[in-house]
Amino acid sequence: MEKVVVAYSGGLDTSYCVKYLQNELNLEVHSVLVNTGGFSSEELKVVEKKAYEMGVVSHTNQNILEDYYQKAIKFMVYGNVLKNNTYPLSVSAERVFQAIEVVEYAKKINAKYIAHGSTGAGNDQVRFDMIFQTLAPNIEIITPIRDLKLSRQEEIEYLEKHGVDYPWSKAKYSINKGIWGTSVGGVETLTSHKPLPEEAYPSQLEKTEPTDIKLHFKKGEIVGINDEFDTSVNTILKIEEIASKYAIGRDIHVGDTIVGIKGRVGFEAAAATVIIKAHHLLEKHVLSKWQQNLKENLGSTYGMLLHDGQYFEPAMRDIEAYLTNSQKTVTGEVFVTLKPYHFSLNGIESKHDLMKSKFGEYGETNKAWTAEDAKGFIKILGTANKIYHSVNSEL
Amino acid sequence: MEKVVVAYSGGLDTSYCVKYLQNELNLEVHSVLVNTGGFSSEELKVVEKKAYEMGVVSHTNQNILEDYYQKAIKFMVYGNVLKNNTYPLSVSAERVFQAIEVVEYAKKINAKYIAHGSTGAGNDQVRFDMIFQTLAPNIEIITPIRDLKLSRQEEIEYLEKHGVDYPWSKAKYSINKGIWGTSVGGVETLTSHKPLPEEAYPSQLEKTEPTDIKLHFKKGEIVGINDEFDTSVNTILKIEEIASKYAIGRDIHVGDTIVGIKGRVGFEAAAATVIIKAHHLLEKHVLSKWQQNLKENLGSTYGMLLHDGQYFEPAMRDIEAYLTNSQKTVTGEVFVTLKPYHFSLNGIESKHDLMKSKFGEYGETNKAWTAEDAKGFIKILGTANKIYHSVNSEL
Amino acid sequence: MEKVVVAYSGGLDTSYCVKYLQNELNLEVHSVLVNTGGFSSEELKVVEKKAYEMGVVSHTNQNILEDYYQKAIKFMVYGNVLKNNTYPLSVSAERVFQAIEVVEYAKKINAKYIAHGSTGAGNDQVRFDMIFQTLAPNIEIITPIRDLKLSRQEEIEYLEKHGVDYPWSKAKYSINKGIWGTSVGGVETLTSHKPLPEEAYPSQLEKTEPTDIKLHFKKGEIVGINDEFDTSVNTILKIEEIASKYAIGRDIHVGDTIVGIKGRVGFEAAAATVIIKAHHLLEKHVLSKWQQNLKENLGSTYGMLLHDGQYFEPAMRDIEAYLTNSQKTVTGEVFVTLKPYHFSLNGIESKHDLMKSKFGEYGETNKAWTAEDAKGFIKILGTANKIYHSVNSEL
Amino acid sequence: MEKVVVAYSGGLDTSYCVKYLQNELNLEVHSVLVNTGGFSSEELKVVEKKAYEMGVVSHTNQNILEDYYQKAIKFMVYGNVLKNNTYPLSVSAERVFQAIEVVEYAKKINAKYIAHGSTGAGNDQVRFDMIFQTLAPNIEIITPIRDLKLSRQEEIEYLEKHGVDYPWSKAKYSINKGIWGTSVGGVETLTSHKPLPEEAYPSQLEKTEPTDIKLHFKKGEIVGINDEFDTSVNTILKIEEIASKYAIGRDIHVGDTIVGIKGRVGFEAAAATVIIKAHHLLEKHVLSKWQQNLKENLGSTYGMLLHDGQYFEPAMRDIEAYLTNSQKTVTGEVFVTLKPYHFSLNGIESKHDLMKSKFGEYGETNKAWTAEDAKGFIKILGTANKIYHSVNSEL
Repeated sequence: MEKVVVAYSGGLDTSYCVKYLQNELNLEVHSVLVNTGGFSSEELKVVEKKAYEMGVVSHTNQNILEDYYQKAIKFMVYGNVLKNNTYPLSVSAERVFQAIEVVEYAKKINAKYIAHGSTGAGNDQVRFDMIFQTLAPNIEIITPIRDLKLSRQEEIEYLEKHGVDYPWSKAKYSINKGIWGTSVGGVETLTSHKPLPEEAYPSQLEKTEPTDIKLHFKKGEIVGINDEFDTSVNTILKIEEIASKYAIGRDIHVGDTIVGIKGRVGFEAAAATVIIKAHHLLEKHVLSKWQQNLKENLGSTYGMLLHDGQYFEPAMRDIEAYLTNSQKTVTGEVFVTLKPYHFSLNGIESKHDLMKSKFGEYGETNKAWTAEDAKGFIKILGTANKIYHSVNSEL
Repeated sequence: MEKVVVAYSGGLDTSYCVKYLQNELNLEVHSVLVNTGGFSSEELKVVEKKAYEMGVVSHTNQNILEDYYQKAIKFMVYGNVLKNNTYPLSVSAERVFQAIEVVEYAKKINAKYIAHGSTGAGNDQVRFDMIFQTLAPNIEIITPIRDLKLSRQEEIEYLEKHGVDYPWSKAKYSINKGIWGTSVGGVETLTSHKPLPEEAYPSQLEKTEPTDIKLHFKKGEIVGINDEFDTSVNTILKIEEIASKYAIGRDIHVGDTIVGIKGRVGFEAAAATVIIKAHHLLEKHVLSKWQQNLKENLGSTYGMLLHDGQYFEPAMRDIEAYLTNSQKTVTGEVFVTLKPYHFSLNGIESKHDLMKSKFGEYGETNKAWTAEDAKGFIKILGTANKIYHSVNSEL
Repeated sequence: MEKVVVAYSGGLDTSYCVKYLQNELNLEVHSVLVNTGGFSSEELKVVEKKAYEMGVVSHTNQNILEDYYQKAIKFMVYGNVLKNNTYPLSVSAERVFQAIEVVEYAKKINAKYIAHGSTGAGNDQVRFDMIFQTLAPNIEIITPIRDLKLSRQEEIEYLEKHGVDYPWSKAKYSINKGIWGTSVGGVETLTSHKPLPEEAYPSQLEKTEPTDIKLHFKKGEIVGINDEFDTSVNTILKIEEIASKYAIGRDIHVGDTIVGIKGRVGFEAAAATVIIKAHHLLEKHVLSKWQQNLKENLGSTYGMLLHDGQYFEPAMRDIEAYLTNSQKTVTGEVFVTLKPYHFSLNGIESKHDLMKSKFGEYGETNKAWTAEDAKGFIKILGTANKIYHSVNSEL
Repeated sequence: MEKVVVAYSGGLDTSYCVKYLQNELNLEVHSVLVNTGGFSSEELKVVEKKAYEMGVVSHTNQNILEDYYQKAIKFMVYGNVLKNNTYPLSVSAERVFQAIEVVEYAKKINAKYIAHGSTGAGNDQVRFDMIFQTLAPNIEIITPIRDLKLSRQEEIEYLEKHGVDYPWSKAKYSINKGIWGTSVGGVETLTSHKPLPEEAYPSQLEKTEPTDIKLHFKKGEIVGINDEFDTSVNTILKIEEIASKYAIGRDIHVGDTIVGIKGRVGFEAAAATVIIKAHHLLEKHVLSKWQQNLKENLGSTYGMLLHDGQYFEPAMRDIEAYLTNSQKTVTGEVFVTLKPYHFSLNGIESKHDLMKSKFGEYGETNKAWTAEDAKGFIKILGTANKIYHSVNSEL
């Protein structure tokens, strides 16, 4: 019997896949769940149990938080990546690393096939297929949901027919959780004009009294909160814990999908939003104008390629080299106040702060140049404009 | 006696200039106040009275709101211009148009000199000098404050000596108000780590109950609120009236000045912030991915050049042509909820909305292509990556 | 019988299509040849005769030179479009406008189908299909060559079987000619290391004595040569006539295809190369630094999208608005010397020339500023760097 | 007596400086000549002798070829830097490294002053001053030529008065030679329309028979010619030796100076031109489309900042990190034919060549996808355009 590795989440679609692969294609099914922060240990146990009840030959839970951080989150922070100026890429980026993990596992156990449960209408199929094909050109991809276009009811009936009778939750909102944010889809996000209702968001407002926090960055990486230093992953989890109680970092992302249609999805990403905004503020103090200008475009290209599943595009490595080098001086503290539904950035402290220098302060008397210097500066700075308008006085 | 036109605000610095120009330089002083939305008619009368008491030969109040809107605000909305991702350029952009107005007035009355009250440490001197030199290369610029580097006390004493004895307000915060926002400087903004206190902001929180508003855009311009259509200038003023009661649009801008040092300044800009964010959301629905990508860079360059006083750089006209053309389909409504200290964008409605099409919905079953089409798409989309990694398998 | 419009060139592939559409699909075949400068009137007559001999119900020759110029060539000149810094897009751009013409004709005669002769491996299929689908979503596309993957011999045999017995030229080099250049493919261009031999190029060196020419531009458009003013299309044809005798504008383009593989193709484009380089030189004299910087990126994006068949991407219209506006001052003469295999740009003359001004000459004594002004300028221009290195002295 | 270090070239201007510093300012003069490839050992001896005859206390010749290569030329090759698409930055980049060397020497000998001979009208003063001020904020800069605006005749008379009586060559053309190219200024380059005459160029056509050469690149660096491997500096010198005999790499650069006026200067740069074009061709074969796109903008920004004397802008280090990373696969051979006044790039060979793959060849039958795959690809690739035009059918 040939082996197939299926990217399994415990939900209806991927459960259907398991049964379909066993019964219709007669394959030896190995399920893998790649956890990027969306599953607690209890939830993982439930999924594992369910997988074996479905009849998989083996089930594996992989935790890739550290790897995901090192290979993507870190660079999204360096690049202040907010797609369309809003969305921290939450689920989009995860898919890529889940795919990598699945394909590595498939290679390890010599599987002939990989299966995933994506439909033919969205971004995820592109991310999965492209990563699989690039890393394992010889492993064939099977996508029952995309191919068969079954309704939810048909999937349930098929599973029941094969003895699987779960009370498949028909949640009103489709939720995808990870360390870098949670996406929320619902009937409202299929329209252009309706916001998600308060209750659609998994995290609810729990605190109303403002809290001051201090975030520590070292060469661009988040390394601590309130003088407590830890790994970046742990620090992100702590910030999420504190900030999510304020229902911070919610918004609706409207974006262009890889397949050319527009999509709209709600998200909450308390830690990601606070960290990126704080990091960006620190950069404004420690990077030069040119550094900021050039980074902005590269960061946004990085986010776009990552979103579009192009993680293995070699330009990504070049951008990572750029971003890493740009973070040499991005070390210091950022002071933030968390409040209900929003937060404010109060300021920073850094030994690399370019505002603190003997060259004088903006708008105040300064010691670095005289009035005559300033006049000479402006005179020459304006030369090009003056020539243009003197030559083209008729325009 | 030679004529000098002085850009006059009624404050200590420009009052000093008036007296200095009369007494030390023996000039015939004509004062001009160019109102970009920061002065009420009462305030204008006070300034005018004061100017004549100072001994100016003539004083003129110019209202350039409409002109300022047509020549800059409109394009800042088209380009979603938020400098460093935060600051709607409020005061920075105004200076340019105040300078233009002053120089036009000086030419009209055949003045030999123009005077302004900027110091030698900031951006404003650059904006004023460059505009003056470009538009009137033969008019000489006089800048007593920059040249003499007097202390506040010295200025007051000089004025008293010449019979001017006002109770010069020594406000704790230096406030600059205009239609596109108000800047707030204080002892905190000279540090890197302190936020401005609540009371530093001119607008205070007055309402706590959320309000839903609907903004109307037509080809990128704000043309109405809640089905009430008006000129864009009037609509902006109405939005400011409503939104500023929620203390919305406050932040601290940290930026690179034209003279190369970093500056930090608080601002509140309720209308500007809400309008730009709403406009941007509408664009996400009606513009193509490429349109958004290209606009982003051009909008940010436009803001940077405008901030730096380069309004007469000819590339500005090219960018305006681009931005104008890009707004053909940016027509529709944006639904916003105002809340204390923040607001949320609920959605949009537009006949140009690219989410509403017969091509299917994101993530849902669609009618535009089959599973086989999707597989072919992804296969070829991934070709370049696959080739790269097959050729460079060792990397 | 249903109607099909076939994009017909008289070659083996499209002749096969005609017969196939008639015999296998039982369609009423209407052939269209869209001339973008590659066919003389004699050649057009030959193709027409051949089409009727093949049994088409109607054949039409469309000349779209003027339209092609107004909709694309003009903008490629404005944008100095040389793909990968080398290739004037010659054939790539034509395809788009040939496709538009074919689809308009199909709509006019109410055809149910459109057919083209592209293979499944190249760029042309993408350009044809995308234009057809965008402009006529309801017309079905038929592509026998792509679908059947026949060898040359099989096509010939099929045609012979159906009574068509031409001596199909088996040219050593595949040549595609248009007003903006001629592409040349051969066994060498399938390698990475071999150049095309001299004889592969349709134009051969005919003159060795240098010739001086003067090109006239008006707002960016080529409008005359040697004081002879004419339409742009006619001027291009005249320049080609003169310059091609010097075997100028030859090179090999190495580029990324739309389908993700690399391609290599020779070309000769005497007029296009000389005009673009001359136009670019004129721009260096009349545009500001910022204008040039911003144009460069937009021009190259325009070329990339046009090459990739994305002519109907709305961002193209935005870029055209930008480029058009940027050409306001691009009026003047450019002096060129044509020599065997290369040419030199000698200089320009323009009333908008920014080198000619009262502000002094580069490197010479100037009257616009003093030594003190220059020192002040440099001192402040260097402020940001000085601060950075004083704050980060350890880096 | 205080020490001054003067950047000395042996020419009239810097000789004037030496005498002026001794006699008028009563300083102890130490002269330094920083050789970037423009001086032979004989010429260096002549300059040294002259310096001592002028009365300098010490004279030093510094050869910085290797340093200049490692810190700038290498990156200009990586970035294919040709300013305004033409000029390999030849002299502009050298100045920066000459300035660094001079300032380091001044610090070493505890000089209180640095002097240079630039005028107040050009770029060099900016490069010198900015580097000096950044690296040695406490050393004062003296610029007699800029300050005194003397005529050539006045300088000669002053020198004669102080016993210096050289036959100062009054060359018709001002020549500046370095390893990366030679600039040529003359009466023609002060106009916009005249080319430089043949005899103005130092290298004259010596060979007419074409020569084939093979250039070896390793990770983007030029490392050999015709199977002879050597240091990059030596290889550049060898290529210059061979290619300059063909009078290759000549052109006139028209550019925007740092002080805002346009400048025009001739140059010949045989090695630089051939190496950059060859390197660029190799990149077209081994880099992905995205890698090339992103590099292009960064390379051109790098060239612009370097030209403008902003070598110590920290963004330069970020770009260098990017460019270095992008060169991982830029290894292989490029085949070039040198001919009188021009050269042709024949092709490349590289194990990283992305054209050589099992994925099929452009335009030929391929094995990587089917006709159906291609149709699916195009259908989805065109989705966004189709939606746009169906929604906006009236536009």
